[in-house]
Amino acid sequence: MIETQVDRFLRNCWYVAGWEDEVPAEGLFERTLLNESVLFYRASGGRVVALENRCCHRGAPLHLGRREGDCVRCLYHGLMFNPEGRCVEIPGQDHIPASACVRTYPVVAKDELLWIWMGDPALADESKIIRFWWHTDPAWRKKREYLHYQAPYTLIVDNLLDFSHLTYVHSNTIGTPSNATTRAQVEPIEGGLRVTRRYHNDQIQANRRSIATFDGPADRWQIYDWYAPSFLSLYTGSAPAGTGAHEGHLVPEAMQYRHCSVQTPETASTTHYWFSHAANFGLETSEVIDVVFDGVLRAFKEDKTIIEAQQQALLKGRPFQTVGIGHDGALVQARRLIQRQLDEEDRAVQSAAQATPAAAASRRIALVPAK
Amino acid sequence: MIETQVDRFLRNCWYVAGWEDEVPAEGLFERTLLNESVLFYRASGGRVVALENRCCHRGAPLHLGRREGDCVRCLYHGLMFNPEGRCVEIPGQDHIPASACVRTYPVVAKDELLWIWMGDPALADESKIIRFWWHTDPAWRKKREYLHYQAPYTLIVDNLLDFSHLTYVHSNTIGTPSNATTRAQVEPIEGGLRVTRRYHNDQIQANRRSIATFDGPADRWQIYDWYAPSFLSLYTGSAPAGTGAHEGHLVPEAMQYRHCSVQTPETASTTHYWFSHAANFGLETSEVIDVVFDGVLRAFKEDKTIIEAQQQALLKGRPFQTVGIGHDGALVQARRLIQRQLDEEDRAVQSAAQATPAAAASRRIALVPAK
Amino acid sequence: MIETQVDRFLRNCWYVAGWEDEVPAEGLFERTLLNESVLFYRASGGRVVALENRCCHRGAPLHLGRREGDCVRCLYHGLMFNPEGRCVEIPGQDHIPASACVRTYPVVAKDELLWIWMGDPALADESKIIRFWWHTDPAWRKKREYLHYQAPYTLIVDNLLDFSHLTYVHSNTIGTPSNATTRAQVEPIEGGLRVTRRYHNDQIQANRRSIATFDGPADRWQIYDWYAPSFLSLYTGSAPAGTGAHEGHLVPEAMQYRHCSVQTPETASTTHYWFSHAANFGLETSEVIDVVFDGVLRAFKEDKTIIEAQQQALLKGRPFQTVGIGHDGALVQARRLIQRQLDEEDRAVQSAAQATPAAAASRRIALVPAK
Ligand code: FES
Ligand code: FES
Ligand code: FES
Repeated sequence: MIETQVDRFLRNCWYVAGWEDEVPAEGLFERTLLNESVLFYRASGGRVVALENRCCHRGAPLHLGRREGDCVRCLYHGLMFNPEGRCVEIPGQDHIPASACVRTYPVVAKDELLWIWMGDPALADESKIIRFWWHTDPAWRKKREYLHYQAPYTLIVDNLLDFSHLTYVHSNTIGTPSNATTRAQVEPIEGGLRVTRRYHNDQIQANRRSIATFDGPADRWQIYDWYAPSFLSLYTGSAPAGTGAHEGHLVPEAMQYRHCSVQTPETASTTHYWFSHAANFGLETSEVIDVVFDGVLRAFKEDKTIIEAQQQALLKGRPFQTVGIGHDGALVQARRLIQRQLDEEDRAVQSAAQATPAAAASRRIALVPAK
Repeated sequence: MIETQVDRFLRNCWYVAGWEDEVPAEGLFERTLLNESVLFYRASGGRVVALENRCCHRGAPLHLGRREGDCVRCLYHGLMFNPEGRCVEIPGQDHIPASACVRTYPVVAKDELLWIWMGDPALADESKIIRFWWHTDPAWRKKREYLHYQAPYTLIVDNLLDFSHLTYVHSNTIGTPSNATTRAQVEPIEGGLRVTRRYHNDQIQANRRSIATFDGPADRWQIYDWYAPSFLSLYTGSAPAGTGAHEGHLVPEAMQYRHCSVQTPETASTTHYWFSHAANFGLETSEVIDVVFDGVLRAFKEDKTIIEAQQQALLKGRPFQTVGIGHDGALVQARRLIQRQLDEEDRAVQSAAQATPAAAASRRIALVPAK
Repeated sequence: MIETQVDRFLRNCWYVAGWEDEVPAEGLFERTLLNESVLFYRASGGRVVALENRCCHRGAPLHLGRREGDCVRCLYHGLMFNPEGRCVEIPGQDHIPASACVRTYPVVAKDELLWIWMGDPALADESKIIRFWWHTDPAWRKKREYLHYQAPYTLIVDNLLDFSHLTYVHSNTIGTPSNATTRAQVEPIEGGLRVTRRYHNDQIQANRRSIATFDGPADRWQIYDWYAPSFLSLYTGSAPAGTGAHEGHLVPEAMQYRHCSVQTPETASTTHYWFSHAANFGLETSEVIDVVFDGVLRAFKEDKTIIEAQQQALLKGRPFQTVGIGHDGALVQARRLIQRQLDEEDRAVQSAAQATPAAAASRRIALVPAK
């Protein structure tokens, strides 16, 4: 089944909320994630705070409010909330009920990305954040971008896990004829899949020839680790054919790239998409990464065009029955993995309910998806 | 519960349909009220007629039709209706079936407002119209305006019944710090609530200082009578502190204002909002009322911003649970009053159904809200 | 009942998909018909092919794909389909499953129109296509146009079958006062209705007087054959009064017109509308048809205005109960005819299911309307 609308989101995982520097030093920043509006701001020392962007009094959005110290005051009737989401002032009264609070979300800044945990806060484990370490490593030079999609995140996952589309969607940018004919090797990794494609004696993408470190045929590789629900860490590159790249030996002319693609559902049918691309050669100027990134960006816009058109096509006409092909291997496994994790979250909520009803109740609140 | 959508409207009450002078001397005027499109025009002598704006033949809107004497002709197939809603001509045939009619609504022009009764016509009692007599009293000078809201009328009622928001929403216009800390006195009146706030030794709103009749501290008052479902008649003013205003004695420098705010649901989630503000001093020129009204209008736009944002915030995310505060007293009572009147309308329909089935059936038609 | 939304379309009939010359010699052309997106292109020899515009792999629209010979390749992952809708290439694999295909629709070009059959292909009988032979007859000179309607096709059928509206909607274009007072004669024909109106000693439409072949009073006629669900073939004209036109004798000054109006549902609530108007006199220059067509086009835009307003009026307010009038005769019969044909299609599917379950299953697929 291909959904045009995602009804259930994985909750107990870290999502990207944006680039870390999108949250201003002062002021309030709003973004909708998993169908919830979230308020971000920096408390003392620059620490980012993430609160439910809906005052518990009458529901006014807090991002139209005002900072007062580390707190934010709702500018409807003046309730004030601290960075832990507790109401600390109600104008005209002394007593503040315990229920007067807004949800707070664990957030972590790492590798220039801002990560948020929208599930059970007790399970938020910083060590599970997917790393994109080269974002801050001086041995790599990168560029980054953002796209907003009118499609559910699952259609983007499908796209990322079948590189056969490169030949057709990206024939003028990053694709080569060999993409569609090279069957990928797919293997499970912790929390995801590794998809490996190796091309022997192949050609460099046309639009990258100007910045290539060598002429002639190339051995190329694409190794990408995908993690549920929607993280892609790609290692790709090329070396002069026959110099041992596929056997683990990289000559100095070898060109290596690392790529980060992350999606976070905005709503059931729209998606945030952040990505970056880095090279480890030609670091002195921006020439290499400009050329490479230009192709990547154009390719990603080509993807956006076809995926949003796919979404529209699926919304119309008779019920759609997909016909599987060989290249679907990775995407089918990815869908299964997401489903398995969704089922696990359900089971966790249920078994907690049997063990300690009260704790489970609060956990359930944290896990119940928005209607 | 805070609704983002109102499914049931009070029917047996007078609503404002617009300023009386909005209905042109000639020509046809359309406005949607309580989710019904209504046609207004002036019959002989200027009397305003209000008809269901949907021809009983095939549903074409009558406001695209043509006046012929006191009648209106549908310009689709030519049926003609008189001011009582009866079809008086069907082209090509002599017989006119009794069912060939459109609803007609009782309308009354009063205090520059046009009032309409959209419930059981037999219950329409002109004496129940809320009066805003100062609209036409030469001892008062007023200005008036209209706003269209992308929010249900209930969110506006909430706003009007909790003046603590003045301090926060209107800090630059009509609010003072004292609004949020002064608890209002709330008492029931016939069909509504009276909310009284008295401020002792307080300050005049900053933006009104230029037109003030006196300097120094002021005793201020806000007395507003709210009537279900959505009428506000406000009497407010200020006098030099200690001159007896709160005890009923007004010195000549006392500045008095009267304000009218009425809402009529347009649809389940949009609202018409008419209001006026009047002063009883500085009547010779428009200076005083210009200054005062400018602040009121800016304040009302501030309200619109926060209320429409609240509506959007309530529409998104998990189900919303409101947390009550002390200042909610009046709005909670108002919501209960509206609910009680809705329940009464239901009971009236049911008991009528038991007494005289036929009469009840027609009454039910008049009362059943649109789907 | 007047629907603002059509839930079931007649399937076993020919619909117009467009002007035949809208499908380019090269390239791909998309149009939504009966809520399905259809891809059109010309295979060898100019023959038009119509395919379901949704790749069977993951649903990408094929009109964003690429022609390769007589085939079309999906530019997502590269599946290629032949004009029969069969997948003939899946990149990276040899085996092509039998299920890898898209629907194909019978199409026929006739009378400058492109006709499509969206029901059971086994029943597509070219001889049942409604003919508009004068489109290509040199004895007639025509102009043609297209309108897109924000209303279900049924509201347009209603309009076309009650010419009493000409007097009111088209008082400044093609209507005359006599339209509304002349009762039409309605008789059944194969698959439709014939509506005949004859006007004796009447006047020519004001806007056609400049091109009239005679002065003075006219005998006029309108004979239109309507076929379910939405085809109108109109023969109309006028001759000097008393020269025998109504008895079958046409003097040389007689002015004859032929008109074609066809609607195809785009979605449940939007409609494609193609029409043409032809005259058989003044053929040397475009003057006559320019004058006549100008009036027709303006009239059709007047219809569009009132019908789209009717649709909006029906969508709002209480449930609508139509009141019938005498002029409704033809439209009521037309609605019944459509309903009868819909019921027949249902019965055919059911009885096929009892006879040969397997064949019926595939037929059912062909007939089941989109959800
Ligand atoms: S809605 Fe925030 S204080 Fe009332
Ligand atoms: S819809 Fe008004 S006359 Fe037909
Ligand atoms: S969607 Fe067409 S080839 Fe994949």
